[in-house]
Amino acid sequence: MNFASDNWAGITDAVMGALIRANGDFAPAYGNDTVSARVTARFSELFETDVEVHFVATGTAANALSLAAATVPGGLIFCTTEAHVTTDEFGATEFYTNGMKLISVATRAGLMQLEALEATLRRYPKGGRFGHPTLLTVTQATECGTVYPLDHLRALTRQARAAGLTVHMDGARFGNAVAALDATPAELTWKSGVDIMSFGASKNGCLGAEAIIVFGPGRFPHLATLRQRAGHVVSKARFVAAQFEAYLDADNWLKTARHANAMAARLRHGIASSGTARLGWDSEANEVFPIVAKPTIARLKAAGAQFYDWDATSLPENTRLGDDEDLIRLVASFATRPDEVDHFIEVLNT
Amino acid sequence: MNFASDNWAGITDAVMGALIRANGDFAPAYGNDTVSARVTARFSELFETDVEVHFVATGTAANALSLAAATVPGGLIFCTTEAHVTTDEFGATEFYTNGMKLISVATRAGLMQLEALEATLRRYPKGGRFGHPTLLTVTQATECGTVYPLDHLRALTRQARAAGLTVHMDGARFGNAVAALDATPAELTWKSGVDIMSFGASKNGCLGAEAIIVFGPGRFPHLATLRQRAGHVVSKARFVAAQFEAYLDADNWLKTARHANAMAARLRHGIASSGTARLGWDSEANEVFPIVAKPTIARLKAAGAQFYDWDATSLPENTRLGDDEDLIRLVASFATRPDEVDHFIEVLNT
Amino acid sequence: MNFASDNWAGITDAVMGALIRANGDFAPAYGNDTVSARVTARFSELFETDVEVHFVATGTAANALSLAAATVPGGLIFCTTEAHVTTDEFGATEFYTNGMKLISVATRAGLMQLEALEATLRRYPKGGRFGHPTLLTVTQATECGTVYPLDHLRALTRQARAAGLTVHMDGARFGNAVAALDATPAELTWKSGVDIMSFGASKNGCLGAEAIIVFGPGRFPHLATLRQRAGHVVSKARFVAAQFEAYLDADNWLKTARHANAMAARLRHGIASSGTARLGWDSEANEVFPIVAKPTIARLKAAGAQFYDWDATSLPENTRLGDDEDLIRLVASFATRPDEVDHFIEVLNT
Amino acid sequence: MNFASDNWAGITDAVMGALIRANGDFAPAYGNDTVSARVTARFSELFETDVEVHFVATGTAANALSLAAATVPGGLIFCTTEAHVTTDEFGATEFYTNGMKLISVATRAGLMQLEALEATLRRYPKGGRFGHPTLLTVTQATECGTVYPLDHLRALTRQARAAGLTVHMDGARFGNAVAALDATPAELTWKSGVDIMSFGASKNGCLGAEAIIVFGPGRFPHLATLRQRAGHVVSKARFVAAQFEAYLDADNWLKTARHANAMAARLRHGIASSGTARLGWDSEANEVFPIVAKPTIARLKAAGAQFYDWDATSLPENTRLGDDEDLIRLVASFATRPDEVDHFIEVLNT
Repeated sequence: MNFASDNWAGITDAVMGALIRANGDFAPAYGNDTVSARVTARFSELFETDVEVHFVATGTAANALSLAAATVPGGLIFCTTEAHVTTDEFGATEFYTNGMKLISVATRAGLMQLEALEATLRRYPKGGRFGHPTLLTVTQATECGTVYPLDHLRALTRQARAAGLTVHMDGARFGNAVAALDATPAELTWKSGVDIMSFGASKNGCLGAEAIIVFGPGRFPHLATLRQRAGHVVSKARFVAAQFEAYLDADNWLKTARHANAMAARLRHGIASSGTARLGWDSEANEVFPIVAKPTIARLKAAGAQFYDWDATSLPENTRLGDDEDLIRLVASFATRPDEVDHFIEVLNT
Repeated sequence: MNFASDNWAGITDAVMGALIRANGDFAPAYGNDTVSARVTARFSELFETDVEVHFVATGTAANALSLAAATVPGGLIFCTTEAHVTTDEFGATEFYTNGMKLISVATRAGLMQLEALEATLRRYPKGGRFGHPTLLTVTQATECGTVYPLDHLRALTRQARAAGLTVHMDGARFGNAVAALDATPAELTWKSGVDIMSFGASKNGCLGAEAIIVFGPGRFPHLATLRQRAGHVVSKARFVAAQFEAYLDADNWLKTARHANAMAARLRHGIASSGTARLGWDSEANEVFPIVAKPTIARLKAAGAQFYDWDATSLPENTRLGDDEDLIRLVASFATRPDEVDHFIEVLNT
Repeated sequence: MNFASDNWAGITDAVMGALIRANGDFAPAYGNDTVSARVTARFSELFETDVEVHFVATGTAANALSLAAATVPGGLIFCTTEAHVTTDEFGATEFYTNGMKLISVATRAGLMQLEALEATLRRYPKGGRFGHPTLLTVTQATECGTVYPLDHLRALTRQARAAGLTVHMDGARFGNAVAALDATPAELTWKSGVDIMSFGASKNGCLGAEAIIVFGPGRFPHLATLRQRAGHVVSKARFVAAQFEAYLDADNWLKTARHANAMAARLRHGIASSGTARLGWDSEANEVFPIVAKPTIARLKAAGAQFYDWDATSLPENTRLGDDEDLIRLVASFATRPDEVDHFIEVLNT
Repeated sequence: MNFASDNWAGITDAVMGALIRANGDFAPAYGNDTVSARVTARFSELFETDVEVHFVATGTAANALSLAAATVPGGLIFCTTEAHVTTDEFGATEFYTNGMKLISVATRAGLMQLEALEATLRRYPKGGRFGHPTLLTVTQATECGTVYPLDHLRALTRQARAAGLTVHMDGARFGNAVAALDATPAELTWKSGVDIMSFGASKNGCLGAEAIIVFGPGRFPHLATLRQRAGHVVSKARFVAAQFEAYLDADNWLKTARHANAMAARLRHGIASSGTARLGWDSEANEVFPIVAKPTIARLKAAGAQFYDWDATSLPENTRLGDDEDLIRLVASFATRPDEVDHFIEVLNT
């Protein structure tokens, strides 16, 4: 019953097989190999447009370097209150952007609200001494397990582009979002005004495969240097490329993502039907955020369930934690089994 | 006949086997797994002292973050003219150290000369407005394939410590150095005045395994934050740990390094005995730098040999390239076969 | 009727006289002159303790370098919503601190509220991945013209020190605060837990005289280097020192500050008694923030009054701007004359 | 007999008079006053082209911010071995440029040699991993008291522009250069390929007046933000503007510079004619670098002469210091009197 995080899972057989096949002979280092070239072509096909692909070691680096690629001295970056780029990693964004400022916009369950973005943009207009409005970043699926439908996403990016902002998408769990929505990768990104994205595969069954995707090669001319200067150009890049190839092959990434989402839905259903717990908010991807009585939490842990307590600030205004309740986070992955979910719900209900 | 670089080789069977074994069940992310814990203990055993181990994605990051851990505003870092930390990666060191200055010290075949270090330290004394002398970094084995014997290394670090400098070792090819020298890892590092090192395993048969080793836990209190802020904390760290475990197990790392060194020695011997080429300088690790006539270079390439032309600035003063000669670099790895070497020499001699 | 800003005023006769006297003979540059030495002694006397004094060109630099002197990678700085260090100057603080994060704490009329600080410190605890709690900065007098009484200030710094924070005071208008309060400079700073301050004199009658004051020499060992690296060590420092000497001599600074405060009080009194305007909030130093009907604002401007419209976010919750009202800021200085104030009120009342 | 530095001198009467006149009434802060506007027009007239003028507090800031305005991640800056931008101020350039690398080019008496620049550019070509060639900076007059004649300057900038470099001039002593050469300010800058310059007036009789001049407004769009973020926008800018106005009025700046140069020439002549000292190298501006016997140095100091010992690395190859000799630096300024010079030579000759 491991619901701690999708990055606690291992590697899918498809990806491990690809690593084994990629081994053997010599191959040019630093991404000059043939598999890396094939992967760039594959990404262009997937997104139905020419893209530039830069592998990096982590999602943190993908985000921070993407934002850094659009650096303007004294620039402002608009993100959500829950955004990983601002809440974690000790100021990675500020570090890589030489001190750009992150402005938090209020959300509902992790989804940036259009009126909140509008109000924030009015508060930080072009020409103010606070800083130069420069970037919008949205996370898809969000840190709260929710996903932006196309129209919501487009309303935000339309606003951003009207204000002259570059748009970045944090796609650490992009597979889960695509699996949850009835839209293509292209529609969910550049066709909806996204300029650059962090494409994460590690959480969805890879060993370590994260990439920055630029929609329109050459648009961020300093990006290659920024990545190299940051020490994110691994030498044996073919092994990263091989992971992506297997990941995208035969819709593997959507299969694992759909499975994870389905396991999360099964959890949500079980929780909603239980008398002992309720959902903090509804979600669509592979993360579930229930409010559970403290004794029940203790019982679940005693039964071997693994999960994290979660910060309650994302709860809707009208939802309050009782004194003996806590918000927890449950994450499903490609490796989550239905019987684990059922056992969890069983313990919850006893 | 691939002598382009040791990072063009693949992964050893031992390391691939470890990756396969590490897969399967769930494991805590970000280095909180049991394999990571075991690897720290293993490194402490290897170095005969308590060490702190921080995995990073690349040798560039290992170096830049090690130096950044000792950052002093306005600080100076002394390195060699050939040092990777200054000649490559678009100023990674300056970036990570918020602008510390690299001062190059003259070398003989990549080995920093003691008198040159002394003269440089006199030129940049404590209290000068140029900057604050802060760090010495030496590469072992050097970028020129040479290695520092214990007494040479100790003479340099003694000088450095007398000047109040922290000492860093770039050990991208540390295995090749240990294999080439009659000294223990402990003797070649902290027992000789090294405070912190970059320990590279990728070039010697791993997929991607680089670590910063701190001799004396807690000595660089900001290092963990610097690494995280840089996006170098990979989520599924157990797969990096597993590589190191297999690498250090049963002297695997020294066996592959010894093989690479032996192949390089076989190359050197063949070149020295040939009438058509000569060594730019002697070397002991797995890199060989011959001076070859241009038509011969063309013939070697036509025969399928892969290698890089090399910058001639490291040549000894009394050695000059003829008009029709070039300096080239040949690198041997765990995957280099004796028959490839022999074929190369054969083509050279025809 | 110039109420635009206290830095629109010129220089007092005392300060101009000192500049003239300081001219003439040769004097060592970069602060090694005798006047600079005397000024450090004078500041130590003023603050009743040994201090370190670093002149800088602007209040922005004084603040940013003070905070930079306590830089911790991934550190957090707590300030108010209105704090100049976060609202202005295009991220000067983030730039000088290599990317530390500013966390805004809610205020009442610019004064940080104790409960708000406590709640914020709980939200960003030691050990969190958001960042390391490092600094508290408070402005005295605040950006809203209010001042912290001793007990309020001490309650905040006690909380900060309990959380391990270094405490900085932005004293761009410190003279106005001292003049408004019944407390000594020592009581308002280090005796109340302040470690380092920005001491501004330019707004109160100097040409350009800003200094960083360290309570306890040597506590911020990198500060001198940071200042020099930033290009804030002026060559002919005697002319800055001379300004400070004249400024502090014979309580000149308190006389000009008291005058400015008195003129602001006269404005407040006139506004409060008028039927046509009201105070957004009460203030004690030399800034006044009235809510005025838009036609009245137009009439005042037509009559030659100079002042700025102001951001309404600092208004108390229960105070709302009417549709035809605006918040404006009036600043008094040493050069403000009573008849100007009276004329302003007269126009207001017509 | 004060030859320590031109910034040990005070302020000219013209400049002091301007400061007094600029005082009095209110004036907009931050450079929005009428004097500042007039000064920009005056500079455009002086340079016979439209320029952008940014006041800063010091020459260090003028240089570092000028170079920062052309920042490219991983960029390289070419300068001389003696250049103030690299030898002083604890890495100000690296700090402001977020880690660009300074590459030193060999000189003769502080003058960058064309062949040396060509060789250096070949060593650091476009496309190399060392970094991106970005800027050339030359000092006029140089740190060695020499000046670039027009043809020398143009040969360097032609080379630089062919390599795609932006060209910066450090004009801390630009007045002395113009006074020494038969060329206009325009010819010595943009007409010779200079894009941006540091224009220093403090060393030549101002209190504190340094500016960045951009040849072609708008060419460095981030410069204004960089300056503000650095805390170099002083509030009462009219007092800086007033200095520049008086400085440039009626050729005042050339008169003081010519006087300083003439005093330096008188020193050089006296030294060359003395039997007891010789010139380390010839110079044309207001700095003189004699080699003097140590007992003579002691005698000069005992007689009250003030000057600094100097680093001997700039001496020509064929000039060696004797064991009992030292290189010293003598600087003349607007305030240097002929009788002081004559007294110095007299003591030298006794």
